[in-house]
Amino acid sequence: MAASLEGLFRARSVALVGATDRSIWSSAAHANFARLGFTGRIHVVNRKGGTVHGLTAATSCAAIGEPVDAALVMVPEAAIPDAFADLRAAGIRNAVMLTSGFAEVGAEGAARQAALLAEARAQGVTLLGPNCLGFINYADQVPIWTTQPPLPVLRGGSIGVVSQSGATAGFIAAFAHRQGMGLSYQISTGNEADVNVARVVDFLVDDPATRVIGLFLETVHEAGTLAAAARRALAAGKPIVAIKIGASETAARAAAAHTGSLVGDDRVFEAACRQLGMIRVPSIEALVFTAGLMAQRGPVRRRGVGLVSISGGVCEMAADRAEEAGVAVPALAAETVAALRAVLPAFGTPNNPLDVTGGAMLDPALFERSLAPLGRDPSLGLLACFMDLPDTAEEVASYRGSIIRAIGAGFRAAGLPAVMLSVLPRPVTEAGRALLAETGITYLGSGVPEGLAAIGRAFDWAARQERGLREAAMPDVVAAARPEGEQATLAWLAGRGVRVVPQRLAGDAAAAAEAARALGGPVVLKIASPDIAHKSDVGGVALGLEGDAAVAEAASRILANARAARPEARIEGVAVAPMRRGGVELFVGVLRDPLWGPAIAVGLGGVWVELLRDTSLRLLPVTPEEVLEMFAELRGARLLEGYRGSPGVDRRAAAEAIARIGDAALALGPELAALEVNPLLAGPDGAEALDALAVWEA
Amino acid sequence: MAASLEGLFRARSVALVGATDRSIWSSAAHANFARLGFTGRIHVVNRKGGTVHGLTAATSCAAIGEPVDAALVMVPEAAIPDAFADLRAAGIRNAVMLTSGFAEVGAEGAARQAALLAEARAQGVTLLGPNCLGFINYADQVPIWTTQPPLPVLRGGSIGVVSQSGATAGFIAAFAHRQGMGLSYQISTGNEADVNVARVVDFLVDDPATRVIGLFLETVHEAGTLAAAARRALAAGKPIVAIKIGASETAARAAAAHTGSLVGDDRVFEAACRQLGMIRVPSIEALVFTAGLMAQRGPVRRRGVGLVSISGGVCEMAADRAEEAGVAVPALAAETVAALRAVLPAFGTPNNPLDVTGGAMLDPALFERSLAPLGRDPSLGLLACFMDLPDTAEEVASYRGSIIRAIGAGFRAAGLPAVMLSVLPRPVTEAGRALLAETGITYLGSGVPEGLAAIGRAFDWAARQERGLREAAMPDVVAAARPEGEQATLAWLAGRGVRVVPQRLAGDAAAAAEAARALGGPVVLKIASPDIAHKSDVGGVALGLEGDAAVAEAASRILANARAARPEARIEGVAVAPMRRGGVELFVGVLRDPLWGPAIAVGLGGVWVELLRDTSLRLLPVTPEEVLEMFAELRGARLLEGYRGSPGVDRRAAAEAIARIGDAALALGPELAALEVNPLLAGPDGAEALDALAVWEA
Repeated sequence: MAASLEGLFRARSVALVGATDRSIWSSAAHANFARLGFTGRIHVVNRKGGTVHGLTAATSCAAIGEPVDAALVMVPEAAIPDAFADLRAAGIRNAVMLTSGFAEVGAEGAARQAALLAEARAQGVTLLGPNCLGFINYADQVPIWTTQPPLPVLRGGSIGVVSQSGATAGFIAAFAHRQGMGLSYQISTGNEADVNVARVVDFLVDDPATRVIGLFLETVHEAGTLAAAARRALAAGKPIVAIKIGASETAARAAAAHTGSLVGDDRVFEAACRQLGMIRVPSIEALVFTAGLMAQRGPVRRRGVGLVSISGGVCEMAADRAEEAGVAVPALAAETVAALRAVLPAFGTPNNPLDVTGGAMLDPALFERSLAPLGRDPSLGLLACFMDLPDTAEEVASYRGSIIRAIGAGFRAAGLPAVMLSVLPRPVTEAGRALLAETGITYLGSGVPEGLAAIGRAFDWAARQERGLREAAMPDVVAAARPEGEQATLAWLAGRGVRVVPQRLAGDAAAAAEAARALGGPVVLKIASPDIAHKSDVGGVALGLEGDAAVAEAASRILANARAARPEARIEGVAVAPMRRGGVELFVGVLRDPLWGPAIAVGLGGVWVELLRDTSLRLLPVTPEEVLEMFAELRGARLLEGYRGSPGVDRRAAAEAIARIGDAALALGPELAALEVNPLLAGPDGAEALDALAVWEA
Repeated sequence: MAASLEGLFRARSVALVGATDRSIWSSAAHANFARLGFTGRIHVVNRKGGTVHGLTAATSCAAIGEPVDAALVMVPEAAIPDAFADLRAAGIRNAVMLTSGFAEVGAEGAARQAALLAEARAQGVTLLGPNCLGFINYADQVPIWTTQPPLPVLRGGSIGVVSQSGATAGFIAAFAHRQGMGLSYQISTGNEADVNVARVVDFLVDDPATRVIGLFLETVHEAGTLAAAARRALAAGKPIVAIKIGASETAARAAAAHTGSLVGDDRVFEAACRQLGMIRVPSIEALVFTAGLMAQRGPVRRRGVGLVSISGGVCEMAADRAEEAGVAVPALAAETVAALRAVLPAFGTPNNPLDVTGGAMLDPALFERSLAPLGRDPSLGLLACFMDLPDTAEEVASYRGSIIRAIGAGFRAAGLPAVMLSVLPRPVTEAGRALLAETGITYLGSGVPEGLAAIGRAFDWAARQERGLREAAMPDVVAAARPEGEQATLAWLAGRGVRVVPQRLAGDAAAAAEAARALGGPVVLKIASPDIAHKSDVGGVALGLEGDAAVAEAASRILANARAARPEARIEGVAVAPMRRGGVELFVGVLRDPLWGPAIAVGLGGVWVELLRDTSLRLLPVTPEEVLEMFAELRGARLLEGYRGSPGVDRRAAAEAIARIGDAALALGPELAALEVNPLLAGPDGAEALDALAVWEA
């Protein structure tokens, strides 16, 4: 199904189908060929023939009379069937569809879109859209794009941008341009009838011009493909920086209004990002600065940052924002302090952040002399110097240009990865770009908070990339298995290697007392029924019972309670289990996300889950190593280390139990809606499931 | 001491002392008079006389021969005593001091600064600085400022900016200017030997040109003055928007390096902001956009926002960021939906956020028709429309200008407070400013996240302002009181109206058993000693004891433990108290901040305080109403409402007890370093202090 996108994105001959001088889209698309320097063949197609965009129009693609790689389809929705027949006649295998009126307008449109896809598949046509703005391949100068891109085109860009919203692709491109950064691709996938973000990411992983991939997502149409592509990207060292909307109910509602998209559970997407090494960002600003930094700088593996400014106030603000962004600003080594003391003015203080002092206004070389020793500090991996790039040629010729050149010389002398950040957000002008080219400086016109946030993300990604992927094996589905109720679910888990509390099923009070004697010590009784999920609610639980009389009395009461409360329920008897004390209660829940499939949530039990919603989530399967990472994300993680004299938990054993619970759930197949182990009691000697529940799709 | 700042900031005649053509500061200061349109008298003073800045220089201030309102002192530090003698001779009562080399260079400098202040006080001179850049009063066109301000000057600005860092004042002014917003004042307070931020804020509260006050703070020199001024500002409806550095250790270190400032406990400053209605922001961007919004729009009291864009993608991003910023985006009323359906294209969806659709590119009036009905929606208090302002006159003349005019018309038709936000951060040009003036649109070139964050802060402030200040009375200090140890501290609290657990002091085992009998029920024993703060650490606590034998045995053991562990300690005996069960344990801690004075922390006991550090902080005194607000800030607040069948807490009674604990601590005077009640046991019937400890300054 997934034909290569090569033929589409590297088309050498393009037909504009439905071309007309009266359409701003058609006119823009045509003008873009010259703007981008497209050197292939351009054909205009209009039913009526004549001259369009100064070219003689063919009346159909078939009439062009030579092979065409790709068509931009701009005809109205009603004319689409004819247009596709014409594509078939002309043997055109790639189509970009601007035309709207499909899935985004509701059920009827969705039916039209399904028919469109079927037709495309039948003809072997790779289809981008419908309801998209097209794409620009900046690297090979192939623009099939229906609005004006930011001009002049910045060559050599290496950020590949893919967006489900066409306007947003345009905003990202325009903002990157304004900040002096070029793109390798901008691709609007629209309704994604055929080509979708996942497939485009897969293509870009192998694209030599693309160093960083930027995404704007409303939904994920092929989560498995995206996951696989993201794994390849991480292995290849290509960061993926993604905006995904839908964290709020309001945005989910807006997406439904806009494109009918299902945004999915935001926490599952967040978990997928963590697991696959995708960098999630909250805004276009963050996307452009993060992608721009990583495209220019590549991964920086040593985390400490040396902050440098000409203003003490900026140093202090930067230090606060660095901490917030998770960027370490280590104290300087004694040698560095000594070296700086030798070059700073008497009233300066060698420190990180480093205030080079206003003296650098009169003596720009102070920057060079100060940056150089920072490069030898063993705790620093990156230098970040705050200075605004000049806007005009006059400013470049003034002391302001001298300062930038001194910073460039300092970066070179330091020999560390380095970036210059603007003090406040501002565009990069042509004169500024020229000065950057001359000095070789990596620059973000981001201001302090966005710049430091981008640095923090770059560090996180580099660490993630170095750690690599943990690929857990996907267990086979055991088709026949379908446990219901606590006992069957616990038995299923036990059969898959999870330690579960021993339980004995007793049919009546006497049998319960006997079972309790056999187990020894205080016991717990619970009603055993595949039909009763919430046992406490029906008076079906009794704790800490000792002695025949107490056990028997409780068993009778529980059975009577359950029969009274739920007369229709199948009652199997009373489960008798030893009463456990101590340890830390964990919550383990497997759920099924409509986009990403099965996922697992882990948390501490009681108030932690119930009041604080303190859980960590991952896509399944997970390895025990991943579960250990999940533990570390919990706010109450320290409880696992032991607290107020209680012993710590064998975290490795607990993690293994949880990974097995995940595998056991996967082995139950796609009909399993949810599986909950609550609690999994973890202690110094391992973890044991005390209760479990499986929920099946209706 | 605190002379009016009127004479300084509204000076009509100014002497530049130490003026010379060779200094960039002196030259800038002189040029600024013409740039700002200063209409008063300008004098240049140089020991050698001659011509400076094209004027005949007086050889001293005294030689000027006419009254001078203010002097800008730029002479080297060594010449300061002579300069002050000259000020005295000339009768000049206001001085702005650029000269550095004082407290910011260490102990010797601090001594020089103290001498300088003493001299200024003796002469009745109001002193701004030293080590400051001066001030610009834009409203009255009085610039005593030593670098070039952003030009052209934007008239009618109403943001008063005060900064301890001169460079930062310049950055704020430059960024505001770039975003099209003027200031009423920019004031650099430098080392604050005399005039400080607190006094300037007090002045600006009464300044008619200033509608919003923006602060950059490294430290707070007169917390009481600032608190009083902030209270007046809130009452007067003037928001204070403040950057305060020092949230991170690194920034605190940087501030020490930069100006020797003590940044103080960040959480106490945060508490002060909450209490006084100051809006704390993390960056200059946030300061300028928040202040700019509030200066233009004033308070907006109804919280719901209608979000409007031409792009579905922007709508979705805005919805997510709105939720993060605490901005409600309510669903529209049925009438609004119907009205919108009548004006939107067939493929548009009436929704909040509202995507007016790309149709508005060809038909800008769609904006006007869509905005108007939103104005009648009962759940909306503000409209926020995302659209970039054009940069050039050509763009203004194009469809882009038409769109802005349609938005302006829509805002007027809606009749609600409204703001236009850029999709991405961008400067405001002269052509843009003209279009804003023409259309009357309030605009922030902030991009989506910063714009929505500013809106969220504006709503919060309006709600805070409406709620008003809660002014608790400051209790008198009881000079003689100085409780030490648990029993004395509990007794002090009891005497101040706090319910405390009844305790009986027993000298030996037999007395303990007798006391337990008298109390009835299980008891708690604790070692009673003013010298032992951590009783558990010495084996000095026993819980849940019943019966003479058990109590006597425990009392003997505790006494022996304590004597063995701390032979030097004064042992008063064993305290016997009833064992309490149930309820919710609260932590109450009074501490003393070196800048702000006494403050109170409240949290839930156990893991909440120990693992999660989940506390809320306020300056003392507090009212019970404020304590109720503190409860609401706790992450575990729901525990107070009852949880898993346990009854809720009488929050009002607990709040009253906590307010009384605060008052009881204040009554102990400034020698009290800390007072802790842990736990205060709260239940449905009130709150009772079970343990308490006072710590005194050494």
